[in-house]
Amino acid sequence: MNKDQLFEQIRAKRSFLCVGLDTDVRKIPQHLRVSADSIFDFNRAIIDATAPYSVAFKPNLAFYEENRTSGWRSFERTCRYIRKNYPEILIVADAKRGDIGNTSEMYARALSGFADAVTLAPYMGRDTVDPFLKYEDKWAVILALTSNPSADDFETLKLANGDPLWKEVLRKASTWGTPDNTMFVVGATRAETLKEVREIVPDHFLLVPGVGAQGGSLEEVAKYGMNAECGLLVNSSRGIIYASSGVDFAEAAAEEARKMQAEMSTLLENYL
Amino acid sequence: MNKDQLFEQIRAKRSFLCVGLDTDVRKIPQHLRVSADSIFDFNRAIIDATAPYSVAFKPNLAFYEENRTSGWRSFERTCRYIRKNYPEILIVADAKRGDIGNTSEMYARALSGFADAVTLAPYMGRDTVDPFLKYEDKWAVILALTSNPSADDFETLKLANGDPLWKEVLRKASTWGTPDNTMFVVGATRAETLKEVREIVPDHFLLVPGVGAQGGSLEEVAKYGMNAECGLLVNSSRGIIYASSGVDFAEAAAEEARKMQAEMSTLLENYL
Repeated sequence: MNKDQLFEQIRAKRSFLCVGLDTDVRKIPQHLRVSADSIFDFNRAIIDATAPYSVAFKPNLAFYEENRTSGWRSFERTCRYIRKNYPEILIVADAKRGDIGNTSEMYARALSGFADAVTLAPYMGRDTVDPFLKYEDKWAVILALTSNPSADDFETLKLANGDPLWKEVLRKASTWGTPDNTMFVVGATRAETLKEVREIVPDHFLLVPGVGAQGGSLEEVAKYGMNAECGLLVNSSRGIIYASSGVDFAEAAAEEARKMQAEMSTLLENYL
Repeated sequence: MNKDQLFEQIRAKRSFLCVGLDTDVRKIPQHLRVSADSIFDFNRAIIDATAPYSVAFKPNLAFYEENRTSGWRSFERTCRYIRKNYPEILIVADAKRGDIGNTSEMYARALSGFADAVTLAPYMGRDTVDPFLKYEDKWAVILALTSNPSADDFETLKLANGDPLWKEVLRKASTWGTPDNTMFVVGATRAETLKEVREIVPDHFLLVPGVGAQGGSLEEVAKYGMNAECGLLVNSSRGIIYASSGVDFAEAAAEEARKMQAEMSTLLENYL
């Protein structure tokens, strides 16, 4: 999927919502746990319920890997289900991979078969990202400034040039690809910082976690982060997929997604 | 496995060799490719052949994930095979994971079941590493200074305090755990730099890739990197496991591992 198609979808759905499929088998409603692949059954219901309000789904690999072989099967089935039934929706494999050379090529090959985009860690530099940029209409989504407490350990360290590390990551990594194949992760709990982000990467899409459960404000994120083609994918995971732990879990998820979409629709008014 | 046990094994085998199981199905000898799990069959033969000369095996997750569900099965079988037949040998899952919170906990749970140690990327800070330190006798192996060309993109960036980023990573990350549950990755192609590494982390084990195929010198690594308990695990992957692509691949791997072990034995002389 390219940037034009993504923006087209955002305008059509009046939404820039990404639903994070952080599916934890311990949090799946009781009545689904009898199934042979309860993770996939849960995901399918969530996907069907939230697809009208979402432009992206983001399965988090850790949650699938925890269940090893059967978890990978759930991940594959989930991606195939989205691709088949909602071909317009972006699939982001939240893998935060960060390796080099032939190893990074392996990850690129493994994940590009399922997903449109893969999250990547920048520590080892360009060698991590390059293999992912070889695939047409695929996206490298590079960590820049995250919203966890220990982001201050290294991401915000001041460099000799006066900038924090994350700015140098944005500056350098934005030259490796283009706004058509590269996005950046910027946490929502630092919404004002999005202004500084936009000074460095005005045209790139940003994947923004941390709205909802982690406390970021959607309005603030839009205020500082939107660009001429929206340029935002705002992710919510737990706040949507675990909105209810009862038999009404899918309806409750749809309702939470719909609420966010309604708010996004207002914020997108100038674009529609 | 704790540090004393690791050092004990190093003294007993007169080796600090880690064999990297970067098993690429395209490089497996032709005669093995008919098997239902040729990756595991290859690994088993390599493990049996090189175990007498090695203190650690390091399966690289990317190579297994490339084959998705069946790849994870090969990874699991490989770890179980090592654990059962060579309980004294350290298993390092080379995953370079780097996530936070409940996601990092998932990875820790998923990988601690199979491996003694997991490689981790430091970009997001302590939140990535903490969940791995909760498991007794397990190791977090944190990227510090790697040997790939683009390590200079960020790892060697000069901070406001005058140090390169990798030194701050060593300094900070060494306070999160102890030399009994934390190691650092330092590439062999920068052997002289190991002297500076040792000034910051005198007591930690270092996992050193880049000897052999990538051109680093074992003697230099030992000269600058060894500490009172050896403190080194030197990894070789391709140079050993693909020493021959014929039916004699296991013997050839054993011979390459034996050569490294012989050199290591000399370098270890003062410890034995």
